[in-house]
Amino acid sequence: MKARIIVTLKTGVLDPQGKAIEAALTSFGLTGIDGVRQGKVFDVEIAGDDRAAAEATLKSACEKLLANTVVENYAIEIA
Amino acid sequence: MKARIIVTLKTGVLDPQGKAIEAALTSFGLTGIDGVRQGKVFDVEIAGDDRAAAEATLKSACEKLLANTVVENYAIEIA
Repeated sequence: MKARIIVTLKTGVLDPQGKAIEAALTSFGLTGIDGVRQGKVFDVEIAGDDRAAAEATLKSACEKLLANTVVENYAIEIA
Repeated sequence: MKARIIVTLKTGVLDPQGKAIEAALTSFGLTGIDGVRQGKVFDVEIAGDDRAAAEATLKSACEKLLANTVVENYAIEIA
């Protein structure tokens, strides 16, 4: 089973990396970019067909390792 | 207008970071993880309502800065 986890910074948390990307895009001549925020994506391959078990495993993975829940949100999409 | 860009490694390109995450999750006691590949996500805020123009701008951003198209794929989703 395939799943995708997307980890993004919470609203209000400063994102200097995103700001740097925004500035770089503007300096490359792109117009109309009002903001960029960078996050992480994890494509996970999970054994078995039990969606509930997979979701529990992935939630645990996010809480333990993949996301810092103080400043980041995560979303789990199971294909 | 909001858009999301997801940049992932092409199939076949080695992902040592993903392998390290997979090993870490297993060492945390999670079972059934068969593979992890890490990518990047960019949440972009674009001025105006012209979807075609936004898509062209984002495509240009990916080609110029956000993705290394030799080893990475990108996907653009406009909300």
